[in-house]
Amino acid sequence: MSTQEELALARVALTWLAEPGTRSVHGLVDEFGPVGALDLLLDGGAPQQALRESVAARSRAGDARVVAAEALHRADRLGVRVVIPGDDEWPGTVEQLRTLCLTDARRRVDVETAPPLCFWVRGSWPLAEALDRSVAVVGSRAATAYGTHIATDLGYGLADRDWTVVSGGAFGIDAAAHRGALHAGGLTVAVLACGVDRAYPMGNAALFDRIADTGLLVSEWPPGAEPLRPRFLIRNRVIAAGTRGTVLVEAAARSGATQTTRRAIALGRRAMVVPGPVTSAMSVGAHELLREHPEARLVTGLAHVLEEVGRIGELAPVPRGPERPTDLLDDDARSIVEAMPRRGRIGVDALAARAGLAVRTVLRKLPLLEELALVVRREDGYAMVTPSRRSTRPGPAASPGGPMGGDAPLPA
Amino acid sequence: MSTQEELALARVALTWLAEPGTRSVHGLVDEFGPVGALDLLLDGGAPQQALRESVAARSRAGDARVVAAEALHRADRLGVRVVIPGDDEWPGTVEQLRTLCLTDARRRVDVETAPPLCFWVRGSWPLAEALDRSVAVVGSRAATAYGTHIATDLGYGLADRDWTVVSGGAFGIDAAAHRGALHAGGLTVAVLACGVDRAYPMGNAALFDRIADTGLLVSEWPPGAEPLRPRFLIRNRVIAAGTRGTVLVEAAARSGATQTTRRAIALGRRAMVVPGPVTSAMSVGAHELLREHPEARLVTGLAHVLEEVGRIGELAPVPRGPERPTDLLDDDARSIVEAMPRRGRIGVDALAARAGLAVRTVLRKLPLLEELALVVRREDGYAMVTPSRRSTRPGPAASPGGPMGGDAPLPA
Repeated sequence: MSTQEELALARVALTWLAEPGTRSVHGLVDEFGPVGALDLLLDGGAPQQALRESVAARSRAGDARVVAAEALHRADRLGVRVVIPGDDEWPGTVEQLRTLCLTDARRRVDVETAPPLCFWVRGSWPLAEALDRSVAVVGSRAATAYGTHIATDLGYGLADRDWTVVSGGAFGIDAAAHRGALHAGGLTVAVLACGVDRAYPMGNAALFDRIADTGLLVSEWPPGAEPLRPRFLIRNRVIAAGTRGTVLVEAAARSGATQTTRRAIALGRRAMVVPGPVTSAMSVGAHELLREHPEARLVTGLAHVLEEVGRIGELAPVPRGPERPTDLLDDDARSIVEAMPRRGRIGVDALAARAGLAVRTVLRKLPLLEELALVVRREDGYAMVTPSRRSTRPGPAASPGGPMGGDAPLPA
Repeated sequence: MSTQEELALARVALTWLAEPGTRSVHGLVDEFGPVGALDLLLDGGAPQQALRESVAARSRAGDARVVAAEALHRADRLGVRVVIPGDDEWPGTVEQLRTLCLTDARRRVDVETAPPLCFWVRGSWPLAEALDRSVAVVGSRAATAYGTHIATDLGYGLADRDWTVVSGGAFGIDAAAHRGALHAGGLTVAVLACGVDRAYPMGNAALFDRIADTGLLVSEWPPGAEPLRPRFLIRNRVIAAGTRGTVLVEAAARSGATQTTRRAIALGRRAMVVPGPVTSAMSVGAHELLREHPEARLVTGLAHVLEEVGRIGELAPVPRGPERPTDLLDDDARSIVEAMPRRGRIGVDALAARAGLAVRTVLRKLPLLEELALVVRREDGYAMVTPSRRSTRPGPAASPGGPMGGDAPLPA
């Protein structure tokens, strides 16, 4: 029986021999355990030729066990810890990546989506606890002012409701979401595609330090690891699997953020998309996702996001136009109000004729309308009360969002 | 057997006795024909008490037959014609309103949605022909610059593809859609809630004249009829039923435009919604519709609208990021490019180690990469070719919409 230290070293070595997510490696770990799998690979015993070649190639650059030992030692000096299955803080949710199957997956990054073998963590929160109640907010690096505003708001609002905000630490939407959460004094986690000791991108160095102080920096790659381009896509599966849902704020066509959202959908996580102006290239990816995936839910703000990821019962309020006195009226009463001339007086008979109602119906309803200060009685008939004279509440004709819709007549 | 003239007079009289859409009246017309139904009503023989009262009330204001005759005479003087079922230009599509059933319909306007008894038409096009290939573009009166821009574009694009643009002649989105169609020299139809001789709203008077010159002004109410507020909602069922689909561009919560779209959905017509910034009150109704009705399709422009209403095969192109040379590569070749150091040279063995590939695989792929001018051979190894030196096409690292998504490393 190996110790956690031996298991950690083996898992770190395996991650160095083949990029995280490689299914053949994960299969061998399932079969022989990390230590057995490592021995097998280093003895050139991998059943898959591609894997044998990859291991041989990496081995020419060094001894996997030595490299792993050095990485663990270096991490220790940097205050970075390694987390593996069996540790209390291992997030079980990422194990669901075993079952992840992306439709028409052809590229390696869409096929090799096995669970992580280990996480390198910087920050004091236990990883599993930090991710327990978490939402991912992702989007384009080249975000617009609109997208940045939305992402900051969501980050703030989610953190304010004690949700952990997870993102990728990139420029644009990612950074805005992290910052929003920090402003709320909440918990935020950046899942990186390089070592947690490396500030990539450089411009976010200060942000990463603030995240590490109050939240977590997490990576599958050891301290010092470079942000090679494929790693960003490999990393995205962790953001999708580690959270209850992913909110896509802005994304260009074919962007990596849409790809994280597709992984969330494939994993049965909540996939949420914030629409934007159709004139904005930065919303093309978001709109395409909404058109292609019925599972992706259009969300316009915090309330909708909480409705998706929150407990049952946290329902977002349906937006309503301004309350109007006429909302209280039945059809007959409303017909009378609508038949009232906008200026001058009208007799009860003429009013009944215009409203298409019996005179006695009109006589029965008028007192209520006077009560509501919608009409006023004059010696020679009835007159309409103009909104201004009635109250500060917008009157029937004054409100564009009224029940008559965009095209109700304006007061002449 | 009555003549079309007698039938027209009866239908006009019936429309005056009870607002268009009243199901009880439509039922009597089905049973006894327009003339018989009119006689029955005027003899106070309506089975429904509400209808009897309404008829009695209206009759106090005048003799229905006389009023109808005067209306027809006046229309004739104004160059306005009445169109009824049996006429060649009667649009059969509106008859589907018989089957319209709105969910939780409580208000009169949601219940009384029977087909029109007649149309008053101003303009030379035959009504049925004008509506045969038509799309409704509707939205809020209080439109933003964004919404107005989109509606004008759609109106122009649809008219340019020989689609008739139908709307309500209101300020904002309606007017923008009509204007777009006129700019394209296309056909546009305004379905009004008052007499086709009345310019309502006043500000659109010139627009109405232009529409009448080249398109059509249509109404269920006779010349001179006032735009009473409920009539706008009654009218909306015609816009939904008379067109192949309805595009909602901007709408506040509870706006009349969303109500037209709901009618389109209930009628099995294409319902299309243009999203907007979630920060805009004028898009709240649009986003709610998309959230509540899976049948409502998110559209971002003309191509999507044509895909919905057009013949099968008119499919909108899926937006793509810029083409990249690396798009052509298989996984191994891509891994090699991605493992190339951004600056300086690298030997084949080191490159193989970084890429996690066998040396011979790397040697097999390098010629292709040289061919594509992605890498260049130097005496002491291989170097990356920077996009600028390669071509004008955006290179792997240069494009935010790249396959690595929003967060690929920037060239240092």
